[in-house]
Amino acid sequence: MTRDLLDKIIFNTFNNPFINQKHDGAIVDLEGKIAISTDSFVVSPIFFKGGNIGELAVNGTVNDVAMCGAIPKYLSLGFVIEEGLNIEEFIKIVESIKITADKCGVQIITGDTKVVEKGKGDKIFINTTGFGKVHPKAKISADHIKTGDKIVVNGFIAQHGMAIMSQRQGLEFESDIVSDTTNLNYLISDLLDTFGHKIHFLRDPTRGGLSSVLSEIAEDTDKGITIFENKLPIENQVAAACEILGLDPLYVANEGVFITIVASDIADLVVEFMQNNDKGKNAVCIGEITNENHKKVVLNSLIGGKRIVSPLIGEQLPRIC
Amino acid sequence: MTRDLLDKIIFNTFNNPFINQKHDGAIVDLEGKIAISTDSFVVSPIFFKGGNIGELAVNGTVNDVAMCGAIPKYLSLGFVIEEGLNIEEFIKIVESIKITADKCGVQIITGDTKVVEKGKGDKIFINTTGFGKVHPKAKISADHIKTGDKIVVNGFIAQHGMAIMSQRQGLEFESDIVSDTTNLNYLISDLLDTFGHKIHFLRDPTRGGLSSVLSEIAEDTDKGITIFENKLPIENQVAAACEILGLDPLYVANEGVFITIVASDIADLVVEFMQNNDKGKNAVCIGEITNENHKKVVLNSLIGGKRIVSPLIGEQLPRIC
Repeated sequence: MTRDLLDKIIFNTFNNPFINQKHDGAIVDLEGKIAISTDSFVVSPIFFKGGNIGELAVNGTVNDVAMCGAIPKYLSLGFVIEEGLNIEEFIKIVESIKITADKCGVQIITGDTKVVEKGKGDKIFINTTGFGKVHPKAKISADHIKTGDKIVVNGFIAQHGMAIMSQRQGLEFESDIVSDTTNLNYLISDLLDTFGHKIHFLRDPTRGGLSSVLSEIAEDTDKGITIFENKLPIENQVAAACEILGLDPLYVANEGVFITIVASDIADLVVEFMQNNDKGKNAVCIGEITNENHKKVVLNSLIGGKRIVSPLIGEQLPRIC
Repeated sequence: MTRDLLDKIIFNTFNNPFINQKHDGAIVDLEGKIAISTDSFVVSPIFFKGGNIGELAVNGTVNDVAMCGAIPKYLSLGFVIEEGLNIEEFIKIVESIKITADKCGVQIITGDTKVVEKGKGDKIFINTTGFGKVHPKAKISADHIKTGDKIVVNGFIAQHGMAIMSQRQGLEFESDIVSDTTNLNYLISDLLDTFGHKIHFLRDPTRGGLSSVLSEIAEDTDKGITIFENKLPIENQVAAACEILGLDPLYVANEGVFITIVASDIADLVVEFMQNNDKGKNAVCIGEITNENHKKVVLNSLIGGKRIVSPLIGEQLPRIC
């Protein structure tokens, strides 16, 4: 694969006025509070059940921008390609990036491609950096989290991590476990349109899973968090796979999941609102912010006990995203 | 190296209100035309004479933003680290990023760190994405290039490429060939302050060298370009190294070099203005835009002949930046 061929594929696919300038950068009009997020994607394998590294790289950064309470609009795209990457695979990834970006309503405006020798990379790594304007009604900050606030999650947890993991381990289940990678930006924007400042916090528990995000929030707010095991949304098959592999689903990576921490008086409305959206149809309130157990996350277990959920040390599953 | 340790080093070094939010993104105030540029750096070796991959990653993207006629203000930072990278080396790189960002007047506002297994990367790859507001007097575009415009270069060419190359080949010269990596944003901004719209075009000839940039301009504008070999600024030692290695300095990568294409009536003033700036002290007019030899770059050689400079096919030196 020559650089020229790579460039041709990229320019033909992302054909738009920004990228067609073929300059070292793009010029866009932006105004006001702009959320910016960057992420490098090194997932292995690069094609997995339910998606591929390209789709992940778009959804992941779009979601990170959305979690800032913003409307993602533009993405930059940086490839590091290992020599010998199959050209058909590269084309599939680039096309998948284009389709996913269109779905998300974002444009790829500038990019860069580097090639490294065989054995100095692993097929392909992708960096995406996303930009978007903060929603006018958004006031998302850990500082706005109050005692009594409810924690709502939009759907089934641990799917992405278990999809990658069972593929790596060659595990087979009755039906496939499929990554939940998807874009959450429209649902977030609808939530902010409707509930505005009463949405206190948003976060997608990707690497490190739900437990890491909740532990960070408890730490940062100096409050306690209680969650209820019987409320945690998890598919039977995913729960079974976690058991087989000895993994706690609270620590497993998600890609299409987010939590929102909301004023207690709107919690039921938020759950109902999310259930009416395809990306939130399994939404449920899983817990609340407490004035006890400061800086700790406490799980009320199925059998009536309580246990402290400790933050994840290191990465449970490397190269999950 | 655990992720926690990496994070601690990063947060302690880039201590600022944006990155301290520890969110998945940063929120900044921006207004108007914003230039955005992204670049992944995979240079090998990661430490070289005159710089390191961290310094390069800041200067490179800062310069790309500046070449859009903009004032770089913020950078995002994405690391892909190979397991086993020496912790002291990582700290040196991170500190170098901080020092260079300070020199450039930009802030690192958000970042991401991924770790891959030994043998699946090569020590460290860095993506930086930069943004900044377009200078109010800037009107930089290939569309503004006119027949008769002059091409000015700020200083010695081929230094970065030859520094990397002679280090890789173990070549020794009387004194070391040192990379020219540096930030050009202040000089560009001063030029725009002073000459405004009469600066028609800016570009830094990094990968592919001067010939690639000039060939692209000839192609895009449908005009011809004539350059004069006796005007090309090149250090004796660099010229000698190129000869030994059989490389044409016109194709060798630069990091602290830029060309500007300006209205012919200000060309001498621009050269003089640049010579009064440390980053342009070896500035010289190397050629002009012509109404003949459409889409071609013609070199008037030292011995009085003419030859066509063809665009570089593929990369002359892989992993130069």
